[in-house]
Amino acid sequence: MNYNLVLEEIQKEIQPLLKVGKVADYIPALKNVKKEQFVMCLHLLDGTTYTIGNVENKFSIQSISKVFTFTKALEIYGKELYKNVGHEPSGNAFNSLVQLEHENGIPRNPFINAGAIVITDLLRSAYKNNSFDKILDFIQEIADNKNISYDKEVYCSELESGYRNFALINMMKSFNNISNNVDDVIETYFKHCSISMSTRELSRAMLFLANQGTDPLTKKVFVSSSKAKRINALMLTCGHYDASGDFAFHVGLPGKSGVGGGIVAIIPNLMSICVYSPGLNAQGNSLVGTKALELFTSKTGLSIF
Amino acid sequence: MNYNLVLEEIQKEIQPLLKVGKVADYIPALKNVKKEQFVMCLHLLDGTTYTIGNVENKFSIQSISKVFTFTKALEIYGKELYKNVGHEPSGNAFNSLVQLEHENGIPRNPFINAGAIVITDLLRSAYKNNSFDKILDFIQEIADNKNISYDKEVYCSELESGYRNFALINMMKSFNNISNNVDDVIETYFKHCSISMSTRELSRAMLFLANQGTDPLTKKVFVSSSKAKRINALMLTCGHYDASGDFAFHVGLPGKSGVGGGIVAIIPNLMSICVYSPGLNAQGNSLVGTKALELFTSKTGLSIF
Amino acid sequence: MNYNLVLEEIQKEIQPLLKVGKVADYIPALKNVKKEQFVMCLHLLDGTTYTIGNVENKFSIQSISKVFTFTKALEIYGKELYKNVGHEPSGNAFNSLVQLEHENGIPRNPFINAGAIVITDLLRSAYKNNSFDKILDFIQEIADNKNISYDKEVYCSELESGYRNFALINMMKSFNNISNNVDDVIETYFKHCSISMSTRELSRAMLFLANQGTDPLTKKVFVSSSKAKRINALMLTCGHYDASGDFAFHVGLPGKSGVGGGIVAIIPNLMSICVYSPGLNAQGNSLVGTKALELFTSKTGLSIF
Amino acid sequence: MNYNLVLEEIQKEIQPLLKVGKVADYIPALKNVKKEQFVMCLHLLDGTTYTIGNVENKFSIQSISKVFTFTKALEIYGKELYKNVGHEPSGNAFNSLVQLEHENGIPRNPFINAGAIVITDLLRSAYKNNSFDKILDFIQEIADNKNISYDKEVYCSELESGYRNFALINMMKSFNNISNNVDDVIETYFKHCSISMSTRELSRAMLFLANQGTDPLTKKVFVSSSKAKRINALMLTCGHYDASGDFAFHVGLPGKSGVGGGIVAIIPNLMSICVYSPGLNAQGNSLVGTKALELFTSKTGLSIF
Repeated sequence: MNYNLVLEEIQKEIQPLLKVGKVADYIPALKNVKKEQFVMCLHLLDGTTYTIGNVENKFSIQSISKVFTFTKALEIYGKELYKNVGHEPSGNAFNSLVQLEHENGIPRNPFINAGAIVITDLLRSAYKNNSFDKILDFIQEIADNKNISYDKEVYCSELESGYRNFALINMMKSFNNISNNVDDVIETYFKHCSISMSTRELSRAMLFLANQGTDPLTKKVFVSSSKAKRINALMLTCGHYDASGDFAFHVGLPGKSGVGGGIVAIIPNLMSICVYSPGLNAQGNSLVGTKALELFTSKTGLSIF
Repeated sequence: MNYNLVLEEIQKEIQPLLKVGKVADYIPALKNVKKEQFVMCLHLLDGTTYTIGNVENKFSIQSISKVFTFTKALEIYGKELYKNVGHEPSGNAFNSLVQLEHENGIPRNPFINAGAIVITDLLRSAYKNNSFDKILDFIQEIADNKNISYDKEVYCSELESGYRNFALINMMKSFNNISNNVDDVIETYFKHCSISMSTRELSRAMLFLANQGTDPLTKKVFVSSSKAKRINALMLTCGHYDASGDFAFHVGLPGKSGVGGGIVAIIPNLMSICVYSPGLNAQGNSLVGTKALELFTSKTGLSIF
Repeated sequence: MNYNLVLEEIQKEIQPLLKVGKVADYIPALKNVKKEQFVMCLHLLDGTTYTIGNVENKFSIQSISKVFTFTKALEIYGKELYKNVGHEPSGNAFNSLVQLEHENGIPRNPFINAGAIVITDLLRSAYKNNSFDKILDFIQEIADNKNISYDKEVYCSELESGYRNFALINMMKSFNNISNNVDDVIETYFKHCSISMSTRELSRAMLFLANQGTDPLTKKVFVSSSKAKRINALMLTCGHYDASGDFAFHVGLPGKSGVGGGIVAIIPNLMSICVYSPGLNAQGNSLVGTKALELFTSKTGLSIF
Repeated sequence: MNYNLVLEEIQKEIQPLLKVGKVADYIPALKNVKKEQFVMCLHLLDGTTYTIGNVENKFSIQSISKVFTFTKALEIYGKELYKNVGHEPSGNAFNSLVQLEHENGIPRNPFINAGAIVITDLLRSAYKNNSFDKILDFIQEIADNKNISYDKEVYCSELESGYRNFALINMMKSFNNISNNVDDVIETYFKHCSISMSTRELSRAMLFLANQGTDPLTKKVFVSSSKAKRINALMLTCGHYDASGDFAFHVGLPGKSGVGGGIVAIIPNLMSICVYSPGLNAQGNSLVGTKALELFTSKTGLSIF
C-alpha cells in the first residue's frame, strides 16, 4: 500500500478541522502551543517509517505515559496488579469519584488518572526514590533513544494546579490503596506525565506493542505476547477517556491519547502509529488526530474489526 | 489448525468449572435448565463447522438478540440512531439509572437493556405492529433458517417480572426518548429476548459479522463493511455488561453474551463462534463460555490483538 | 398581636415578587392558572381566622396531599411503616434515583414522590379499591368539610404525562417495595394529588397538627400527640424538596408545599397557616408563598427556633 | 418540672444500652475511651444546672466544634457565606463526594466535614495564622471559661489518618472554593476538632443559642436573634449526619453530635443541654446520648414540635 499517498490525502482532508479544537489550557505550560499543527508517523515492523509534518518536534506526552508505566508495572507484578486496579471501562467522567468510592478506592483501569496514580504508587514500591529515573530509563529503552527527558516547566505547572489529583490520591489512600507517601507518588506521577517526545519517538516506542511485546528491531522482549495483547485490549476499551467507545467505533484500533495532543495506536503485527495535533475535542482527545486515524483505517481497511 | 482437537482440549479443561456458575433464576422459565452443559460451534467463512456437545439443543438467546436488533436498526437509521442511543461503555451497573438520568434519557449503548429498549422503540416506529415479525424474519434470514421462534413461557415470565425494564422505559419516555406506547415496546422487546436458538444456529447467524456484513454462503449483504466493523467494535467494548473490559482483556474477540448462557463471538475474516453453558458468573455472563473462549484464543493465538 | 396588620404588610411587601415565579407547566391543567395571586389564611386554635386575598378560591393541592396520606398511614401502620419508607431528608434531586437504587427501593421519606407512592401503596393494601374514597373521606374529616373533591382534568393530565412516577414505582416494585398493582397505585396517587381545596380549607385542615394531633374545634383525635410531633418534624426536615433546609433556615416552621402553588405550615400550639401564590421558585415551591412565610415569622418572632 | 427526677429516670432506662454502641476507633486517641459512661447536664437560662454523672470529665468535642466555627463565620461574613457553603441536608454519606463534585465544590452545609473545612478556610482568610487561637478564644468566651484547650495527641492522630479530609479539601480547592493553603486549613480544622471540653462546659457554651444569640448570664451578644434561629434551624436539619431526620423525628430538638460521644442540644428560650456517652450508633452519633434526649423530650413534652 502507498502509505505516503494515504498520509498526504489525510493531511489535505483534515485541513478544515485544524481550527476547530481547543488547546489544553489547564496549565500555562500547555496553552501556548500553536494549534494548527498536524504531524503523523508510521513505523512498520521492519523499521520503515512514513511521515508527514514535523515529526522531530517534541510535545508533552501526558497520559500516553500511562501505557508505558502500566507496561512496566504489569511486567513486575503480573496478575497481582488487579488487586489494586481493574481493567474495565469507567463510564463517563461525572461519576468517576462516586465509582471510585463505591468500589472501595480501586480505580476501574490504569488509563484513568486514579488508576495511573495507583500504578505509579506500585512502581514506587518497587523502585523507591529511583522511580522516575527507572520509568524514564524504560521509556528510553523501548524508544531505543537516550535523548528523552521531562519538561520542568510543565511538571511545575501540573504540581501547582493538580488539586484534583491530590483529591484522588488522598481518597485512595483512605481506602489503603496507596502504599507510599502521597506527595512522593504525585511527584513521580506528574514527572512522567511531563515527559516530552516527538511524534517519531512515540511511534517508535510503540513498536513492541505492535509486535507481541518484542521490539522487532532490537529483538528485546519487553513483555510476553499474552501481556502485550492485554495492554492492547485495554487501550481499545479504555484508551480515550469517555470517548473510548467512540474511538473503537470510528477508528477501530487500540490507542491512547494525551491532552498534549498526541495519540498513539497500533495495528497488531503490522505497524505502530503516532499522530499529533494539539487542538482537543470535548472529551479531551486530539480532534484532528482522532479524525486522521479514522481516515487512515477507512482508506486502508486496516481496522482490527 | 486442528480445531476439533482444540475443542476437545477445551471441553476437558473446563470440566471442573461446570459446577461453579449459577443458572439465571430471575424468571421461572430459565431456572430449570440443567447447569452442567457445554456446547461450542465454529463456522468458518466457507461454511465448514466444528462442534462439540449438543449443538442442536435450543436455549433462550436473551441479550444476544440485541446484536440483531441493533444491526437492523443501524441498517434502517444509520447515523440518525446516535441521537437516541450512544456507543460508549456504561461503567458499572449500580449507577445505570443515574447515568441515564444524567444523560437525559439517552442510554450509553444499544447492548445495555435501556439501549436495546430504545432500539426496539425505533424498530416499532419503522414496522408498527409487525415489529416482532420483522425482527424474527431478519434473524431467520441471517441464520438462513426458517425454524426459529420465540418461547411463550419465557416471554410471559419476563413480562410478569420485568419491573426494572418498565422503570427504564418510563424514565426514557419522560425524557421523550421513546416514541411509541411503552407497553407495545416492552412486549416486542421481551419477545425478541425470548427467542430460542441452538448453538449451531447462533454461530451460523453471526457469520455475516465475521465477513464484513455479507453472508459468505448466501452472498446476501446485510450491512455495509463499515457498519459491520462498528457493530464488532461495539461488541468488543460493550458486549458483556460490566465485564466487557475483562472479556476484551482475557478473550480479545468481539462478542455478546446473554443470561440464557449463550455467548457469540467473531474473528474478523475468519470465523464466527457460539458457545453455550448456562452457569453464569457474577457479571451475568456464561462462566464456562467465557473461559472456553479465553482458552480458544490462547490455544490458537486468534485474538484480534 | 395584630395579625390583620401583619398580613397587610406582607401583601404589600411581596407585590414586586408576584411577577417573578414560574407557574408549573408540566401538565396543561396547571399552566393556565393566573400567576399574580396572593392569598393567605391563619387559623388560631380557637377557630379565629385571619385572611387576605380570595381564600375561597380552590386550587390543586398536589404534594400537600402527602401530609394527609402519611398521617393516615402512620395511624394505621405505626412504626411498621419504616420498613417501607424512611424519614431522612433526601439530598438534592439529581441523585434521587441512585439513592433509591442504592437503598434497595426504600425511599428516603414520605414527602418525596417515591415515598408518597409507597404510602399510597400501603393505603391500598389497607383499603383495596376504596382507597381513594377513604383518603378523600379522611381529608374531608380533618377539614370538617364535605365539599372537597378531586379535579378530573388535572388527574387525567397527570396520568398522561407521569412517566417519571411510573419509572419510580416500577423500580420500587422490582425491589418488592410495592405490594399492589402498579397501575392501581398510581391511579390512587394521582387522584389524591389532584384534589382541589381553597386556602381557607387547607389552613383549617392543618389545625390538628398545630394542636398535638387533635382537632381543637371538633375535639376529634386524628393521631396521638407523639405522632403529630413526628409529622411536624418530618415537614420541617423534608417538606420542601431540595429547599427544605432553606425553608427551615429562613421560615423556621414545619410546612409542606405543592407545585400547585400552595404551602401549609403550623406553629405548634398556636395556629395553622396556608398561603397560596402559583408562581414557583427554582426548587418548585411557591416563591411568594415562601417569602410571605419568612416575613410572617420575622415580623411576629413566631419561628419554632 | 423536677428535672433531677427526669435525669435519674433516664439514667436508669438507658443502662441496658450502655454496652451496645461502638466507640470511634478511626484514630488511636479515641478508641481507648471507656464505653460505659453516661453524663448529662442541663443549663436553664438563669444559670441553674441539673446534672447526672461526671459532668467535669473532659472529652473530645470533635464535630460539635462546627457549631462554634459556623457561628463565628456567620457573624463575620453574614449572607456572603452562602457563596461558599449551602444550608441544605446532604442526603446519605455514600455519595457525599459526587454531590460535592456535582455542585461545583460547594458543600451542602457547614456541619458536614467538607462544609466545616470551608468555614475553617473562611476563618483563616479573616484571622490568618492566628486562626486557631481566635477560634479557641471564641469558644472560651461563649463557655465563659478560660480553661479549655485542644488535645495534642488527638490532633496528631487526626492529621496522620485524615486522608479523606485531604481528599475533600483538595477537591474543593480544584473548584476554587478554598482560598488558603490546604495544609494550613486542615491543620486549623483538626485542631478545633481536637478541643476537649466537659459535659458541663459544652452545655454552658450552648446557652447563647437557647437565648436568641445572647448569653443570658454575661449578657454578651454573640449573634443576632435572627442568626441564632438560623443556626438552630441548621442544627435541626443537618446536625447529625445521615441521622438528622431521625433525630428531628425522635428527639425534636436542634442539636449537634460529635464522634467523641457528645451531643449538644437546645430548647429555645428555655435551656441548653449536653449529653455524653461514647458508644456510637451506625450513623456515628452517641447511641445512648440520642436515646437519652429522646427520653428527655418524651418525658417533659419539651420538643419544639
